[in-house]
Amino acid sequence: MHRRDFNLALFGALSVPGLTRQSTRQGPVRVNGDRLGANLRALGAIGKTEAGAQRVAYSEADRAARALTLDLMRAAQLEASVDAAGNLIGRRAGSAPALPPILFGSHIDSVPNGGDFDGPVGSLSAIEAAHTLAERGIRTRHPLEVVVFQNEEGGLIGSLAMVGALTPAHLDRVSQSGMTIREGIATIGGDPERLESVARRPGSIAGYLELHIEQGAILDAESVQIGVVEGIVGIGWWDVTIEGVPNHAGTTPMDKRRDALLSAARFIEEVNRIVRSVPGRQVGTVGRIEALPGAPNVIPGTVRVSLELRDLDAGKIRSLYERIAEAGHAIGRADGTHFEFRQTSENVPALTTGHVRDVVRTAAQDLGLSAKDMPSGAGHDAQDMAKIGPMGMVFIPSVGGVSHSPREFSRPEDVVNGANVLMHAVLGLDRAAG
Amino acid sequence: MHRRDFNLALFGALSVPGLTRQSTRQGPVRVNGDRLGANLRALGAIGKTEAGAQRVAYSEADRAARALTLDLMRAAQLEASVDAAGNLIGRRAGSAPALPPILFGSHIDSVPNGGDFDGPVGSLSAIEAAHTLAERGIRTRHPLEVVVFQNEEGGLIGSLAMVGALTPAHLDRVSQSGMTIREGIATIGGDPERLESVARRPGSIAGYLELHIEQGAILDAESVQIGVVEGIVGIGWWDVTIEGVPNHAGTTPMDKRRDALLSAARFIEEVNRIVRSVPGRQVGTVGRIEALPGAPNVIPGTVRVSLELRDLDAGKIRSLYERIAEAGHAIGRADGTHFEFRQTSENVPALTTGHVRDVVRTAAQDLGLSAKDMPSGAGHDAQDMAKIGPMGMVFIPSVGGVSHSPREFSRPEDVVNGANVLMHAVLGLDRAAG
Repeated sequence: MHRRDFNLALFGALSVPGLTRQSTRQGPVRVNGDRLGANLRALGAIGKTEAGAQRVAYSEADRAARALTLDLMRAAQLEASVDAAGNLIGRRAGSAPALPPILFGSHIDSVPNGGDFDGPVGSLSAIEAAHTLAERGIRTRHPLEVVVFQNEEGGLIGSLAMVGALTPAHLDRVSQSGMTIREGIATIGGDPERLESVARRPGSIAGYLELHIEQGAILDAESVQIGVVEGIVGIGWWDVTIEGVPNHAGTTPMDKRRDALLSAARFIEEVNRIVRSVPGRQVGTVGRIEALPGAPNVIPGTVRVSLELRDLDAGKIRSLYERIAEAGHAIGRADGTHFEFRQTSENVPALTTGHVRDVVRTAAQDLGLSAKDMPSGAGHDAQDMAKIGPMGMVFIPSVGGVSHSPREFSRPEDVVNGANVLMHAVLGLDRAAG
Repeated sequence: MHRRDFNLALFGALSVPGLTRQSTRQGPVRVNGDRLGANLRALGAIGKTEAGAQRVAYSEADRAARALTLDLMRAAQLEASVDAAGNLIGRRAGSAPALPPILFGSHIDSVPNGGDFDGPVGSLSAIEAAHTLAERGIRTRHPLEVVVFQNEEGGLIGSLAMVGALTPAHLDRVSQSGMTIREGIATIGGDPERLESVARRPGSIAGYLELHIEQGAILDAESVQIGVVEGIVGIGWWDVTIEGVPNHAGTTPMDKRRDALLSAARFIEEVNRIVRSVPGRQVGTVGRIEALPGAPNVIPGTVRVSLELRDLDAGKIRSLYERIAEAGHAIGRADGTHFEFRQTSENVPALTTGHVRDVVRTAAQDLGLSAKDMPSGAGHDAQDMAKIGPMGMVFIPSVGGVSHSPREFSRPEDVVNGANVLMHAVLGLDRAAG
């Protein structure tokens, strides 16, 4: 594995043109890239191992990173607090206190063996944007709230709480830390008995903006600096069970077999063929497979595979699924096996809001950055926030599209570009929103 | 599951024509089918559970079944003993003591959740044949040895010892019983320090004959009564590792994937196509598959599958393997993945001896039974015995081809036919062999 332990060290040597401009007369105000780099480096050091970042939610490293984040909020002149769900909130008053707040942020928890950029880039850029506004004395009309959601990687827990959708079943779930979500919330200074205090009504926010690494390779491959996110794809998950007849691999002639794994192989090819048979950016994946009994000398009698389909259009997911299910049943008829499909999960697509996309696009344009509209193939807290108000997202390139890995990397100049776009999108939303 | 707990009870009501004939003038001498049925019933009762026969080697049930088998040997006027490897031997002197012995038998240990027929049919039919010869006062020229090998299901252990091929590595292996083979041998009255006393030299036996259930469906499907085994197939095992690039299933476009599971699916289809592309009875199986990391939302980066090829012709196994490996590498080149093949095991084919096949075929013919030549797709102690002398096997039909299951079943009349063919093949070999 190619090691990039010193990725963040690159920030120290970075010189980004325009960063030192002091006034809008010299072009748009810019964030302090050196400070942002230093803060990312400090956060990345917490829980770092040779195998990657180990800051799963509620772990000791996660709690240490949260403490650092609260300190950074205070340094940015934000009024820092922990809500009952354990989310970190940094408030800055607006000039028109009656207006609803603009929220922006991300998360800082990692997957096991994670990277330095997924979450921290958006969280610390949000704090840096607020810090820059405070330093420049730029006062928005709307109150601002920098939000660092807790346990994004374990199921968007913090944002579910904020939109009033966190259920007792979620609370009982055991997280990567070994604690239940309920125990985790108590551990990080929340109060699982007071979650209703966290829930915000639809219409109670002026908007939510999130900067994140793309996690795919599109921006990197096309050398585009900023992704204007069109929406977060819907995701359908199915369990597919294929029943054949288990039998002795030595004594059962080839023409007498009802081999569930052979049918599964044909199915996996069909999933790929069907998903690619229509234009668009939809994706379909078989990521998990289990064949029983699973011995080299026994013809598999039962195979279970996962099926995942993603697209911005729920109707397209449905129609692809129907074609795939039909293809499965046809394979079963031809092979003497039986296909059964069971949907296990459905996340509907969360489209970004038109005027929020516009302010993101305009911010990139004003900063002289190339930008393109694109879907988010991964899930984000922003998809929950879309339920209570206007939502938009900013992507920056992920080198090679790698994420959830110690090899995850975004170039320093791209991180700073993202922070600047985020800051100006917040300002744009402040001008645009009622 | 269809239960057949009372299979063996059918023997009680059975009347097989010709069984009571007393002399060769009324046709060939026949075994006592009622007694054979009763003995199979008594053995089948030991270790029987709802989930099938539980007589794995060295277990309490295995030891009880061995004690019964020694009693049955003595009742058949055989001189019963346990050799240092734990094999049960029942000897009967011949009229020409200088001649090498004719050996015949099988095993009585079962797989976990096994059936009533795999092993016991051949073992108790051998004893029944000896019993009938004793009752009729038929004296062979060659000494006879009924052999009930220990731990056939755990790797042909007893017969490996008899041909001098049991290694210290075998002895250290942990068997299904939880004991090592070494401990098991001591437990059943053998002596793991004296194994060299068991090993027989090539040429020291006049022949070895084994009756066994087919375990496949060929005889049953074609309504043929007796299988004349041409040989025991060779078996090649390979581990195939397919390396792609693990990636986020949401953010990686379809045309940017290097999906190891998609390549594996194409490979599984190719294995099936190539094995079926040439005439013959060869079989090829992918029975085990593992995809990593194995999450529904991650494109598999590594897939490992097993490959098994069986045929009577080692050259055909080799040429099929070469075509399959070439097809794998071609898939890898097309998909941007990498295939690696590693052979993990190779059993060479063990062909039966021409004149032993002849005596089996003649015995079936004299008894008025339909017979066909066929390979054994499964392994048997006979394949070891072929290393030290002429070898032959007799198959009887397995209903539906089911074996290693409580649903394993062979009809009473087929079992009795098999015992009669075995007895007359022994007599034929006695006449033919020097």
